[in-house]
Amino acid sequence: MSDLLRPDSITDLPGAAAALWGVLRETPPLTHCITNTVVAGFTANVLLALGAAPAMVDIVGEAEMFAGVASGVLINLGTPTPEQRAASLEAVAGAAASGTPWVLDPVAIGALPIRTALAHRLAEQRPTAIRGNASEILALAGLSAGGRGVDATDSTDAAADAAAALARRTGAVIAVSGPIDLVTDGERVLRLANGHELLTRVTGGGCALGAVMAAFLGTARNTGHDALTAVAAASLVYTIAAERAATISTGPGSFAVALLDALASVGPADVIADARVQAGAR
Amino acid sequence: MSDLLRPDSITDLPGAAAALWGVLRETPPLTHCITNTVVAGFTANVLLALGAAPAMVDIVGEAEMFAGVASGVLINLGTPTPEQRAASLEAVAGAAASGTPWVLDPVAIGALPIRTALAHRLAEQRPTAIRGNASEILALAGLSAGGRGVDATDSTDAAADAAAALARRTGAVIAVSGPIDLVTDGERVLRLANGHELLTRVTGGGCALGAVMAAFLGTARNTGHDALTAVAAASLVYTIAAERAATISTGPGSFAVALLDALASVGPADVIADARVQAGAR
Amino acid sequence: MSDLLRPDSITDLPGAAAALWGVLRETPPLTHCITNTVVAGFTANVLLALGAAPAMVDIVGEAEMFAGVASGVLINLGTPTPEQRAASLEAVAGAAASGTPWVLDPVAIGALPIRTALAHRLAEQRPTAIRGNASEILALAGLSAGGRGVDATDSTDAAADAAAALARRTGAVIAVSGPIDLVTDGERVLRLANGHELLTRVTGGGCALGAVMAAFLGTARNTGHDALTAVAAASLVYTIAAERAATISTGPGSFAVALLDALASVGPADVIADARVQAGAR
Repeated sequence: MSDLLRPDSITDLPGAAAALWGVLRETPPLTHCITNTVVAGFTANVLLALGAAPAMVDIVGEAEMFAGVASGVLINLGTPTPEQRAASLEAVAGAAASGTPWVLDPVAIGALPIRTALAHRLAEQRPTAIRGNASEILALAGLSAGGRGVDATDSTDAAADAAAALARRTGAVIAVSGPIDLVTDGERVLRLANGHELLTRVTGGGCALGAVMAAFLGTARNTGHDALTAVAAASLVYTIAAERAATISTGPGSFAVALLDALASVGPADVIADARVQAGAR
Repeated sequence: MSDLLRPDSITDLPGAAAALWGVLRETPPLTHCITNTVVAGFTANVLLALGAAPAMVDIVGEAEMFAGVASGVLINLGTPTPEQRAASLEAVAGAAASGTPWVLDPVAIGALPIRTALAHRLAEQRPTAIRGNASEILALAGLSAGGRGVDATDSTDAAADAAAALARRTGAVIAVSGPIDLVTDGERVLRLANGHELLTRVTGGGCALGAVMAAFLGTARNTGHDALTAVAAASLVYTIAAERAATISTGPGSFAVALLDALASVGPADVIADARVQAGAR
Repeated sequence: MSDLLRPDSITDLPGAAAALWGVLRETPPLTHCITNTVVAGFTANVLLALGAAPAMVDIVGEAEMFAGVASGVLINLGTPTPEQRAASLEAVAGAAASGTPWVLDPVAIGALPIRTALAHRLAEQRPTAIRGNASEILALAGLSAGGRGVDATDSTDAAADAAAALARRTGAVIAVSGPIDLVTDGERVLRLANGHELLTRVTGGGCALGAVMAAFLGTARNTGHDALTAVAAASLVYTIAAERAATISTGPGSFAVALLDALASVGPADVIADARVQAGAR
């Protein structure tokens, strides 16, 4: 990234992330999650530890109205039952009607037909952000058959062009999770170097980040920060907490516990101290 | 509460709670839970740590017969899929036919239409107990539009009159969770001051208590304690364990782990030592 | 077990288990789980800690093709919704078509009619292995009305004859979990003495073992070890990790965390050092 750009709050992303987190804790954003049954508990605990207010409302007949009153919405396709598929479409309609920001997490798309078709359909309905690993983003951009399950079989940089193209096509901020997280709105590109390998050894390590993004987007709606800043801020806060957690963990079990503790005890000042951000144009 | 009443086992609630817990551990009550997917694992672990035997049977065609053989039943409306809604009605029928005590937890009712309608319907079918936060109890009593998600936006005392009225109307013991837990059968009122704020930072912190109440009600059926005593005993045991857990926790992640350890290691004597109970008439 | 047999890799089961685990970690087997919502998160975390790659694909329209590309499949009947029941039949068809080994875990069968009927149907479709407690194996063999929920109310030895008969009838390796785990292919019988009582105080303590078996069977397909060896190896690795975890636990909460850490830190050499195996003919 030779030509650094410093537009908007991207010029001081750590500062913006710290400010957003402070506001989030003062006024917990109601974060509406339709997510998979494997990670629902962990995701709710991540949001609670962070300071947000989770609500897992994935029922037809409730999702639309709830997305209308929520601060932010996550649609995660990890275990998309018929009920959840219908509730997701309802939630997106409710979010659209009231301007609620929403995040799409196209878990394990590519070869699996049901979720892949749904992800493509949802991607065309103006998500505020899309989060996935490189394989998933490549698949959603139409450039790969996707990974095997939830593994990332492609590197984040391999998905950089696909992410930018997907951002321009959908209007969404695209976040590609990996050793270096990449966040782009199709013009600006942020590379975030915080994080820890143990996040890949805990189920929901990535899925919960999608919920954190929905929470930050909800807060950003009130502070006036743009979606790129909110999504990148969520990544920074989450991965910096993960680094702190890793220092006191002895394996993936204690890491997951320590991550929740860190999300509650790490604070805005730590984000400013620890953030490793590289900003540029694509 | 100036005029203290001391009827039945309420005169020595800590002693009754300790006795009940001792019997529960000797003869683990089979506790049938139909609960939300977010907290199912944590709830089962709470019951196992406590000494009870959990069974999450939420399938149409199985719930009715199982409620008939179980010691106690929990119906929690956190993620009420059509399958769970039908299974809940089955379970209540099975419980009624065999006299199995059952607990209704009307999670997040108020604005959300599906669960709110089901909660009102179930409340009229003679639940043994109803547990919720103040917002949920107010909503079930018809006095509030309910909270936003699972937050308590009203204080327990604000729900005291509604709880007593709901108890008299439904015949259920009403437990209102909050900084001070309030338990009433419509005549007698107990205020329980144990607990810890970290319970609100763990998903299922309240939902699991509903399951503990179902377990204690199952045991009380054999010991002859009344429902008010059983429900209050469950609250005491759970919140006293939470206090112990908080002393060795460094955040919400380690607190949830320590709570499970404490439920297995705290004992009846600790309940007698630590209980902070205020009994009276309404 | 007076007459010891030492056929195949059974002559050195600890050595075979260590070798299999080493290969598994080098090439993580994609382990397809259709499992209950109570333990899905814990199960995925167990597989990740072990070194395998979990994927919880329980959707009609995806399960068949996914079972065809997975290394191993688990069908666990703990919360068998209509969607999971149909997906299970799809997955078994996919596994059969591509020779993917699969494990049946008939959770709580016996009195509960839906899962009992499905378990009997699945058992006739050539599972590679069946894992359960003694009550469940007796029920599947037609010799008992089953336990109450997921409790084991019968000892493993009480199920030894039923397990051998079930193995011969179905062609599956049968694993009976208990204080002494019993594994048999109908001719050979292994008794494995590792493990810890705390495994029964954590929800999913048994269910996750079924997933570990599916992972080891997937690896064994490439190494040429037979199914009896793979299933016994899975039990050894899991229960030896549990023993290590118990030494640093203060209750069921910290035990579950320590088990995940141990699965990631205990290694093949520990299996050889700690294994307590008794092999024989029935």
